[in-house]
Amino acid sequence: MSDIDDYIKEITDNVNTLMEGEIKGEVRELYEASKHLIRTGGKRLRPTILVASLDLVGGERKRGYYGGAAVEVLHTFTLIHDDIMDQDSFRRGVPTVHVKYGVPMAILAGDLLHAEAFRLLNMAARGLDSERMYKIFDMFSNAIVMISEGQAMDMSFENRWDITVQEYLEMIEKKTAYLFAASAGLGALIGNANEEEVNNLFNYGINLGISFQIVDDILGLTADEKTLGKPVFSDIREGKKTILVLKALDEAPEEEKKIIKENLGNRNLSREELSQTADIIKKYSLDYSYKLAEDYMNKALDYLNKINVRNELAKKVLEYLAVFTVKRRY
Amino acid sequence: MSDIDDYIKEITDNVNTLMEGEIKGEVRELYEASKHLIRTGGKRLRPTILVASLDLVGGERKRGYYGGAAVEVLHTFTLIHDDIMDQDSFRRGVPTVHVKYGVPMAILAGDLLHAEAFRLLNMAARGLDSERMYKIFDMFSNAIVMISEGQAMDMSFENRWDITVQEYLEMIEKKTAYLFAASAGLGALIGNANEEEVNNLFNYGINLGISFQIVDDILGLTADEKTLGKPVFSDIREGKKTILVLKALDEAPEEEKKIIKENLGNRNLSREELSQTADIIKKYSLDYSYKLAEDYMNKALDYLNKINVRNELAKKVLEYLAVFTVKRRY
Repeated sequence: MSDIDDYIKEITDNVNTLMEGEIKGEVRELYEASKHLIRTGGKRLRPTILVASLDLVGGERKRGYYGGAAVEVLHTFTLIHDDIMDQDSFRRGVPTVHVKYGVPMAILAGDLLHAEAFRLLNMAARGLDSERMYKIFDMFSNAIVMISEGQAMDMSFENRWDITVQEYLEMIEKKTAYLFAASAGLGALIGNANEEEVNNLFNYGINLGISFQIVDDILGLTADEKTLGKPVFSDIREGKKTILVLKALDEAPEEEKKIIKENLGNRNLSREELSQTADIIKKYSLDYSYKLAEDYMNKALDYLNKINVRNELAKKVLEYLAVFTVKRRY
Repeated sequence: MSDIDDYIKEITDNVNTLMEGEIKGEVRELYEASKHLIRTGGKRLRPTILVASLDLVGGERKRGYYGGAAVEVLHTFTLIHDDIMDQDSFRRGVPTVHVKYGVPMAILAGDLLHAEAFRLLNMAARGLDSERMYKIFDMFSNAIVMISEGQAMDMSFENRWDITVQEYLEMIEKKTAYLFAASAGLGALIGNANEEEVNNLFNYGINLGISFQIVDDILGLTADEKTLGKPVFSDIREGKKTILVLKALDEAPEEEKKIIKENLGNRNLSREELSQTADIIKKYSLDYSYKLAEDYMNKALDYLNKINVRNELAKKVLEYLAVFTVKRRY
């Protein structure tokens, strides 16, 4: 394993141990439901970004693990609730929480994790000075407000055909990128960084997050079921207005545009119809979308390069993560 | 109006203004859904307890309003999600959020308010010393964990007939009383009280909260639809194992016990069958339940009397609220 792999594994192991140990209590089924997705793994990108950002500015590692657990637990809560709202049945190769435990228990499991995320963040921040604690909780709660607005925008897009690329970018900035930004920004805040460093890392995260979501949208049309951990083309069946769809609707000739509009959001399409629709969309949007993702990746790297580095490996990891978001195939 | 009424009205007005002004943003429908129940009013008991507790120990009023808004917003989030889980269609005389805006938007509105509650609490705590901030967030996040466990217990009771009074009391302590306790305890913490005062006010709130829920269960079988703001006897239709049901199952002869068991949780009962079932339950449980509620009220008052009073009116209000929870008819 490379030094980067080792570095990420150490963070992942510590954060996993913390989440498993800290989230427990009476009422067994509630905690089983809450930990269902946590235990399936996932890339732990957000904790890695948080801890590496903290290392970059020379913070205390132990605080970083608590902060990392906080952002991962928060992320898991949003996945559980989003899966209910989007009626998704599979994630990471396993049934979603509401499919396995029922909708009421899944709502409750998400709510529990939402509170646990704040509890973990509080442990990360304990003992820092008072105004810094205020900024930490302000950044975290604002990120959740933004995530909620982004999800509401995403839902409202399903019944509209006039969405602009600008609106799409605003939606994914809120829905996805804000938590990446908060992860990097919180790493800096918890690591006692100054305001400029906090802002630079926050902006690194925003741009990385936008890049990440664009590539997620691409993979939804290009990756296979095993890689995705859920049925392929679910974005098409759910009528998601991804950047690829918006670009294809702009570029495709009338006839193909009609096929896209007819098939998007139709939950009864055959595998072949889905695949055919995906091919049309990709033809007009794949190069454009990868180029856009790379632009955001480069912006992320620019912000990273503004920071005075206390830990070279941490910087290498943050660079690697920015590049990984675009190059990844899963 | 009495001085107590004036005092409560001033708190309610200030907290309402804060909630209306602070909870706003883009994506109109999300904020409309989030404010739907807030705008219907409600008794604002939890903010009143928080501010009066803060006054009792001599804290800063402005912090109290932010704290009061935090606990009321949190309470509203739990109502929105509980109504989805319990499939309730009416509350405070209006359709519930998921009935009016759909389940996905109601889940999201609850999540938004959950985050907003932490944001408001952070504003209440800003500038206090660091360890006090830690304790404030710890008490608040723990209360939400307890509320989630309580709701999970309540749901698990629906399929069980062997619930003990002890289990019921543990459930309502978590589901209802913890937020009353946290409201009083947070008022003390935000008001810079010492540890003993915080504990005494927390225990005042726990006992008041248990008393409150017992009386809520009683009113579910005795009040009329207009007073309740929702259809009468919904607890019977939903199969809720309230203290009255548990006591009646203990005391009633076999024949009547059979009627209770057959009718509880049956959503197709006629108004007459519902009323008949309620009469049987009340016959064996009403006196006992009121007595139990009074016992808890008295325990709440005992804890209140341990505290060194800096504000006589605040104490009068806290006494009034404890008595009100038992004497109220709505």
